Amino acid sequence: MRLAIIGGSDAGIAAALRARELDLSAEITVVLDDAYPNFSICGIPYYLSGEVTDWPNLAHRTIDELTGNGIVLRMNTRVLAIDPIGHQLHCRASDGSSPVLEWDRLIIATGATPLLPPVKGLQTAIETDRVFLVHTISDARALMDALNNTQPSRALILGAGYIGLELAEALTSLHIEVAQFEARDHILATIDPTLASQLEAHITSKGVQLKTSTRVTSIEVNDRVTFALSRDTPVATGDIAIIVAGVQPDTELATSVGAKLGAHGAIWVNRKMETGIDGILAAGDCVITHHQLLGESYLPLGTTAHKQGRIAGEVALGHTTHEFRGVVGTQVVKVFDQVVARTGLTESEARETGLDPFTITTNLDDHKRYYPGAQTITIRLSGDIQTHRLLGVDMLGPISSAVHKRIDVAATALQSKATVEELIDLDLAYTPPLGTPWDALQSAAMEWLQGVSQPAPMSPKMAES
Amino acid sequence: MRLAIIGGSDAGIAAALRARELDLSAEITVVLDDAYPNFSICGIPYYLSGEVTDWPNLAHRTIDELTGNGIVLRMNTRVLAIDPIGHQLHCRASDGSSPVLEWDRLIIATGATPLLPPVKGLQTAIETDRVFLVHTISDARALMDALNNTQPSRALILGAGYIGLELAEALTSLHIEVAQFEARDHILATIDPTLASQLEAHITSKGVQLKTSTRVTSIEVNDRVTFALSRDTPVATGDIAIIVAGVQPDTELATSVGAKLGAHGAIWVNRKMETGIDGILAAGDCVITHHQLLGESYLPLGTTAHKQGRIAGEVALGHTTHEFRGVVGTQVVKVFDQVVARTGLTESEARETGLDPFTITTNLDDHKRYYPGAQTITIRLSGDIQTHRLLGVDMLGPISSAVHKRIDVAATALQSKATVEELIDLDLAYTPPLGTPWDALQSAAMEWLQGVSQPAPMSPKMAES
Repeated sequence: MRLAIIGGSDAGIAAALRARELDLSAEITVVLDDAYPNFSICGIPYYLSGEVTDWPNLAHRTIDELTGNGIVLRMNTRVLAIDPIGHQLHCRASDGSSPVLEWDRLIIATGATPLLPPVKGLQTAIETDRVFLVHTISDARALMDALNNTQPSRALILGAGYIGLELAEALTSLHIEVAQFEARDHILATIDPTLASQLEAHITSKGVQLKTSTRVTSIEVNDRVTFALSRDTPVATGDIAIIVAGVQPDTELATSVGAKLGAHGAIWVNRKMETGIDGILAAGDCVITHHQLLGESYLPLGTTAHKQGRIAGEVALGHTTHEFRGVVGTQVVKVFDQVVARTGLTESEARETGLDPFTITTNLDDHKRYYPGAQTITIRLSGDIQTHRLLGVDMLGPISSAVHKRIDVAATALQSKATVEELIDLDLAYTPPLGTPWDALQSAAMEWLQGVSQPAPMSPKMAES
Repeated sequence: MRLAIIGGSDAGIAAALRARELDLSAEITVVLDDAYPNFSICGIPYYLSGEVTDWPNLAHRTIDELTGNGIVLRMNTRVLAIDPIGHQLHCRASDGSSPVLEWDRLIIATGATPLLPPVKGLQTAIETDRVFLVHTISDARALMDALNNTQPSRALILGAGYIGLELAEALTSLHIEVAQFEARDHILATIDPTLASQLEAHITSKGVQLKTSTRVTSIEVNDRVTFALSRDTPVATGDIAIIVAGVQPDTELATSVGAKLGAHGAIWVNRKMETGIDGILAAGDCVITHHQLLGESYLPLGTTAHKQGRIAGEVALGHTTHEFRGVVGTQVVKVFDQVVARTGLTESEARETGLDPFTITTNLDDHKRYYPGAQTITIRLSGDIQTHRLLGVDMLGPISSAVHKRIDVAATALQSKATVEELIDLDLAYTPPLGTPWDALQSAAMEWLQGVSQPAPMSPKMAES
């Protein structure tokens, strides 16, 4: 069995490792177009901030650990074409050679590429040494060189999603002034606006000059970088600029062999990660995401890529019982001293999906107020008005309030199709320095039940009559 | 509707509040034999340590908050007898009066009383001002007075369960030398011995003189307290001693009206908290605990008392749809800098229950090692060898590792009857400063699967032949 994998990031390596675990004799080859297999892309902001002391530390596993497992790494090698009939990969290596690889099963794990928003001059700008994307280890090293060499005192960031906010924190910690621009009304499109607003205030309090509802219309680079803006201040200038406006699935190789595309233009796969083309699977940021509440969607994340890759590795070797169960949209990000997390659907997502959510917002203590250091967690909880099924939870709190694992309790309940009432029944852990007898999530559930059982308030007219 | 409740701690007050929530017109009376309704008994160690600045702060709600909700509090009033036919309570109040209260529904929430181990001289000793129980706010205030007045430099603690360990920490933080004695082989009988041993080393490193497998055979009090011991050092002396050897259900009133007893001599109730005696319910530390894996058991805890009380309050008012779902044995305690938590069954509990567990012990990172401050969590995970159903998880880690909420993820999965495989499928939150792409619980699940699928190792004889 010869298994070829295109792509050396989370999905590709997870597939390779799982295949190796299941079959010691399989020939497993990972082809990647850079020299950074199995790197944690999510860690790049912490390398730039200096919290991660050098970029090689970002490797989940070293090259020696991977090859020691009998996984062949073809680095700096670009796949030019897939031959789906002859079962070959036609490649171009950085040494000028054109290797041809034979495969019995192929996993496409080409990931995603940065989305370039329609900004005049952007394509030219990113070719200068002042405007950066932050998607690969090469990108990170180039930006790090710029930070070291040009010692910028002011940076512009286009985009305020997860990575954008982590970068704003990283640069601020390096005493670089940050001006950040987000076209949408709020940062973090995936988080409920109520919590996003709270986080915006926190970021601003840390010195980030945040402008939401503001599009960058053009970029000009000379000795500095200038953004033309859609409103308020007509221009903004900085020594460098970073473009973090999201990603799009890299589907070029897959479509060249006729793979079908699905949600958001990502490669369609079934829950076994099969593309429908004989012998060819796909996984990771290049494929659609099965979502337990939304059906076929596109939510590229490392956690999901690992799970999809693991399944692709199993299925490629003929172990086909395990199917991808699907995500519920669980996400978390630390921004300065706060952590915001979500699972399931936000209120507006639930409504857009045609559900009928009731949502409460409440502030609760992370542990008994009488014990020092109690922190407030803001929780938004949505449930279905008719069935009371839990639909989603958003949380915001300081790092010590364990929001990052509290959201996992909600995510786990959601995945068992729990009702809001069933949250109250959960036997959860309590000790005064770390919790409350009714856990914050349970108190939120009780408030939800109180709220949903009250008759709808009369309209002002009705009340008057 | 006149609802009378005997007992003003977690179960009694939870019942009263829930009844009030459901029926604004019900007459709700709580009779309690001290002046401390709705106090957090779990908080006593933190009052003694000074972390809680004064004992009134330990109240979950003030007396005014309770009476403001229309709940009548009969404090310092002891119920002498229940008339189950005439529906009366015969009481003795501290002012010498003998009030008689009428009820339509009665909830017995008399709680538990400290267990006095068979130690020669103990009964006399606890009547002195040098030997203390720690079960009520009165107990706590008496001990606090002793700490302030006699300035002890050395304390003896009999027992090393949750409260015993919290007290050892509290006294150590006050620079009082602590010698602690536990008759069992390990501290914390409810935790797996592997983790208990690790925690013993931690406690010892903090200066606690811990002796396990050591019974106290007699107690003598003169100007100091002397424990005679079953082994090693024949005696131990201290300025004060604290007896924390567990609790037993207070069932006296219930049995006087013919209530049936169940597991561990606790009042038997069904899942609606009905005792079987017309109009009389019971809840909290005085009743049996329905356990999702063990059936009828006895695990007195504040979290459970709150849930049982809430249901008793509902059922007393005729809202009988909600039944107590039962616990899974979730517990957590902070001891100095470490947190130990458990849910489900430990390996030995599973075996005693007749199950066939396979258990792994593993050390995992709480977050990506490349980000500063990563901590090791020790996880023990048990699953059923045949069905792969998750049976239990024990965890030990430093405070920042969020063990207290990680255990809740396992508890929530357990309550949905998840298999170990299904843990791996969970969509959990990840960001490098706070987690790993496969959450620690998921990595433990993968190790479990690797282990359980390996053929049993050959015995040495077989291997030689």
